[in-house]
Amino acid sequence: MTIPPIEPIRDAALAAQLQHAIDTKTKPPGSLGMLEILAKQVGLIQRTLKPALHKPAILVFAGDHGVVAENVSPYPQSVTWQMVENFLAGGAAINVFARQNDCEIRVVDAGVNHNFPPREQLIDRKVGFGTRNFANDAAMSREECETALRHGMELVDALEGNVVGFGEMGIGNTTSAAAIMHALSGMPLTDCVGAGTGLDAAGIAHKRDVIAAAVAKHGVTEPLDVLATFGGFEIAMMAGAMLRAGATRKVLLIDGFIVTSALMIALRLQPALFDYCVFSHCSNENGHKAMLRHLDAKPLLQLDLRLGEGTGCALALPLLHSALKFLAEMATFESAQVSDKTDGEKR
Amino acid sequence: MTIPPIEPIRDAALAAQLQHAIDTKTKPPGSLGMLEILAKQVGLIQRTLKPALHKPAILVFAGDHGVVAENVSPYPQSVTWQMVENFLAGGAAINVFARQNDCEIRVVDAGVNHNFPPREQLIDRKVGFGTRNFANDAAMSREECETALRHGMELVDALEGNVVGFGEMGIGNTTSAAAIMHALSGMPLTDCVGAGTGLDAAGIAHKRDVIAAAVAKHGVTEPLDVLATFGGFEIAMMAGAMLRAGATRKVLLIDGFIVTSALMIALRLQPALFDYCVFSHCSNENGHKAMLRHLDAKPLLQLDLRLGEGTGCALALPLLHSALKFLAEMATFESAQVSDKTDGEKR
Repeated sequence: MTIPPIEPIRDAALAAQLQHAIDTKTKPPGSLGMLEILAKQVGLIQRTLKPALHKPAILVFAGDHGVVAENVSPYPQSVTWQMVENFLAGGAAINVFARQNDCEIRVVDAGVNHNFPPREQLIDRKVGFGTRNFANDAAMSREECETALRHGMELVDALEGNVVGFGEMGIGNTTSAAAIMHALSGMPLTDCVGAGTGLDAAGIAHKRDVIAAAVAKHGVTEPLDVLATFGGFEIAMMAGAMLRAGATRKVLLIDGFIVTSALMIALRLQPALFDYCVFSHCSNENGHKAMLRHLDAKPLLQLDLRLGEGTGCALALPLLHSALKFLAEMATFESAQVSDKTDGEKR
Repeated sequence: MTIPPIEPIRDAALAAQLQHAIDTKTKPPGSLGMLEILAKQVGLIQRTLKPALHKPAILVFAGDHGVVAENVSPYPQSVTWQMVENFLAGGAAINVFARQNDCEIRVVDAGVNHNFPPREQLIDRKVGFGTRNFANDAAMSREECETALRHGMELVDALEGNVVGFGEMGIGNTTSAAAIMHALSGMPLTDCVGAGTGLDAAGIAHKRDVIAAAVAKHGVTEPLDVLATFGGFEIAMMAGAMLRAGATRKVLLIDGFIVTSALMIALRLQPALFDYCVFSHCSNENGHKAMLRHLDAKPLLQLDLRLGEGTGCALALPLLHSALKFLAEMATFESAQVSDKTDGEKR
């Protein structure tokens, strides 16, 4: 399968112009911290001194995981489809935050173990009724994996906006994400495995054992092999969507642990994708902090969230707006006739 | 002068009801992290299971500081009044972020060293044309200090809303705030003094020496003495405004280093005020982190801001909305017919 090429966003001349525009605003240089870095990044992504957000959307991918047969989640698998219904009814956290911050959400059935009655707001891209249990077999075939990647790319092609957030729902998917993290990065399993939706210490230890045995059994290291072996359909579809988003120069809003595991796969395939990513938050799921450090990513929010669904993306969106708005709307020292640092008392 | 009494917000019955409402929402318990804590806090402040924000406003207090004669800032004092003009013209960062997040700002001349032509949007509460240089004399008399506190209280009485943010502008006021922090907390000066708007290492060392000499010279420790000796008119007015905001059960949005120094004074006078405070961010100004730790305060944002003006408050406001909106709008496990952790596969 063809992975779309992604251009690095380095443009020294534009970067210097953006930095100059940022530094002449009426504030001490650097005093807007991460918002300044963000304004510059989006300017470079959009190749303009006047970056702007257009129709932000969050894709919420749902999928089920065969590995739940190993008792790795305190919630039953049926919660995946029930939460999809909750998304469609507008009652989940992601609905609330997306409504608040004027962000469209698109709910995708990437592979939920449930027959949904067809309806307009649910995007049917079901690759299967849940993955296989990776404690025994690869979660999906290479063909299923490529189908999921391709669906993800097509879903991004259907978006009109220039900012896309990624969210997910799938009982068992922190197990999948932890296995991907461990297999790709080689970080110790204790750093990769956490409580998910709320395991106790014994549950976490068991989850760790399940992953350790599976990783030893399958012995895969190449990104697409790792994805097919341990991934979920929602994780594979996200990875495809991310690659296309970068290839079409959109801003990617990255959510928590599971979304970042999909990004780890995508980055192995196209490292330049990193330049297009805004890391919305550092989640409270054990492993996400180490994952972000591994990627050298600096998250905007640290609110101890561990919900998924794209909630971190929706909550960080106002900060992304703020970054572009200060660049667009603030007066300069010159326009406001404010003395700059070097001016002394000359005015 | 009379300091208004402030009630602690502890109400165990209501707290339990709020926690129950939070825990029955369709999400793993605790998975919205700091937003859950915030929802509960505001519910307790407003004494309701349905807390809501009404007409949020940020008061931006401007004042000048005699201590700038000691060369403690890289910017000339005239920047204070020039930035006030910038606020009135709508071109400063606080204007941009307040507009974005639907928040009124009120600009107060607490004691700027400038004759402003009168106009509607500028609230004239000038106590003096800047404070005296605290390297030589107390910055203000006890009477001036009390006038400033009283003005602050009256300004809060004039607000219609139930959320008030605090911002400031005043060349030299990180020097004032660092002196207050050191005198009140006893923390070592190296932990209290930072670069402000952009001093280099030599500048910071000089600023530290100026403060060390002044603190040794004046030898004050009582909160109102510390405020009068080292404070700015804007800092004193903020302290008064904070006390009244707590007394009238408003939510206080605390900004950065200088605003938190005003809060340190107010908390010494009325410790129960703490329960009404939402700490919008941890600033990049050296000292703010230690100040927050000293108060045992957990800030919402950590964006390396160091601008003041109330910008952190305006940027954190969407998160405060999110906290109340998830409580008001999310479905419960019951209403959405989603299986809870303990339900097993019963549905």
